[in-house]
Amino acid sequence: MKIYLDCLPCFLRQALDASRMAVDDETKQRQVLDEVAKELPRIPLNSTPPVIGRKIHQIIRRVTGCSDPYQEIKQKYNRLALQLYPDLKKRVEKANDPLLMAIRLAIAGNIIDCGIKTSFNLNKEVETIVHQDFAIFHYSEFKQRLQETKEILYLADNSSEVIFDRILVEELSQKIVYVVRQMPVINDATMEDAHYAGMDKLAKVITSGSDAPATLLDLASQQFLDHFDRATFIISKGQGNYESLSRVDKPIFFLLKAKCPVIAKDIGCQVGDIILKGPSSSP
Amino acid sequence: MKIYLDCLPCFLRQALDASRMAVDDETKQRQVLDEVAKELPRIPLNSTPPVIGRKIHQIIRRVTGCSDPYQEIKQKYNRLALQLYPDLKKRVEKANDPLLMAIRLAIAGNIIDCGIKTSFNLNKEVETIVHQDFAIFHYSEFKQRLQETKEILYLADNSSEVIFDRILVEELSQKIVYVVRQMPVINDATMEDAHYAGMDKLAKVITSGSDAPATLLDLASQQFLDHFDRATFIISKGQGNYESLSRVDKPIFFLLKAKCPVIAKDIGCQVGDIILKGPSSSP
Repeated sequence: MKIYLDCLPCFLRQALDASRMAVDDETKQRQVLDEVAKELPRIPLNSTPPVIGRKIHQIIRRVTGCSDPYQEIKQKYNRLALQLYPDLKKRVEKANDPLLMAIRLAIAGNIIDCGIKTSFNLNKEVETIVHQDFAIFHYSEFKQRLQETKEILYLADNSSEVIFDRILVEELSQKIVYVVRQMPVINDATMEDAHYAGMDKLAKVITSGSDAPATLLDLASQQFLDHFDRATFIISKGQGNYESLSRVDKPIFFLLKAKCPVIAKDIGCQVGDIILKGPSSSP
Repeated sequence: MKIYLDCLPCFLRQALDASRMAVDDETKQRQVLDEVAKELPRIPLNSTPPVIGRKIHQIIRRVTGCSDPYQEIKQKYNRLALQLYPDLKKRVEKANDPLLMAIRLAIAGNIIDCGIKTSFNLNKEVETIVHQDFAIFHYSEFKQRLQETKEILYLADNSSEVIFDRILVEELSQKIVYVVRQMPVINDATMEDAHYAGMDKLAKVITSGSDAPATLLDLASQQFLDHFDRATFIISKGQGNYESLSRVDKPIFFLLKAKCPVIAKDIGCQVGDIILKGPSSSP
């Protein structure tokens, strides 16, 4: 997905959020904003949002000296999500269609996206998404292709979302290769979050090879590319992975909640919609 | 009120809104964003938001070649507000306290602020504000000082809001000097809007002397300053006038709806609150 003009003010807003989490010093926060503002005119509009997001979070880390501004908020929501886990499992066990309920919950976890906002009511969001109609629902294709695959490449998005992903992974009989970011960026999932959620007991966990808040193939590690190239079934969680992979011709199922108007427009849905979008509908 | 860091991303968002109203050409829109982004690092934080807002709207006019990007939206809401006028009058006539109802309606008109967003449900907003508790309510002081004054300096804010202001002006027996902006900026009221609303039949209408979306005394005309200096009772509508006058030691009553988190924080209220704030509580 290419950058829209709407992304430019949003980058600046995200930089302010992050710099406030990184340091209390308003002079440093201002310095971050100034450096990001100077970067904006250099952004080519044929780039993708996470390519620029990566640069901006590099500026934030450099100027503030804080390698992981979202550490505290990640820990908070990791704890809250883990507390929800037993309840989420019960919902799947009681569901008429456990796989579908697990997919819904994996999407519910996608709301914990600090690129958009930094406070969430998890219980309320889960309750909403459990009963929400999908705006795009390629579930038949998902189930059919699932029967034909032995291994799933599962691209993680946010840190606490890993606990929700675990619910879905536990419903899948295939071998799972679960991909987290190489380094902290926004509140995206890293190896530490995968371990916290116990994902390493259920899946082979690897990293993307980069600090991009997305799956940028140009920056990916050879290990990741080996898996990606031969993948027959890819689950891509969240907006960042959608932004970077929406035009890639691979068997990808995008699972996400549309949280920003630009992504909703690109997908052809409304903000707040939940999406299960399969490869047959891709360009 | 000084600028907060939150204002910087918001300036960029407002520039995008305005440039999209001014031109369809995305290259021009991008050029506006780039020029505004370059301006941001030069902004002194001890300035006020409308000082910078003025500069940004000068950039928008220069780059797009459009002298009044909000013209169409102003005309639309002027028409809608005028259609509401008979109903608003009835509400005042039926009210236990007509003056208070007129104040409420004048504040309801303040929601039509295209600096914040560009689409409004007027009926719904009026209905809400008519029944809403004030977060700050210096009504006793307002009534007491009103008895002691013969002339009121009334500082307008947005274009269609003038029709709502007319409701309040019609409840006041004092001579009214009504102040609009010298030139179009955002959807702020100009002489044209005052005439459309029939305000010139009820009040002496003058202009501020500048194209600032606020009352900037440094840029004000001598005619305005003559009125301002001798004023014994000033009604200041909206956020822009608050931003520019909140630290000025004059008998000012601020009537507004807090629509942005930064102003709400400065006032000490919540976003969405309605405010009638008198001079006794000023610094």
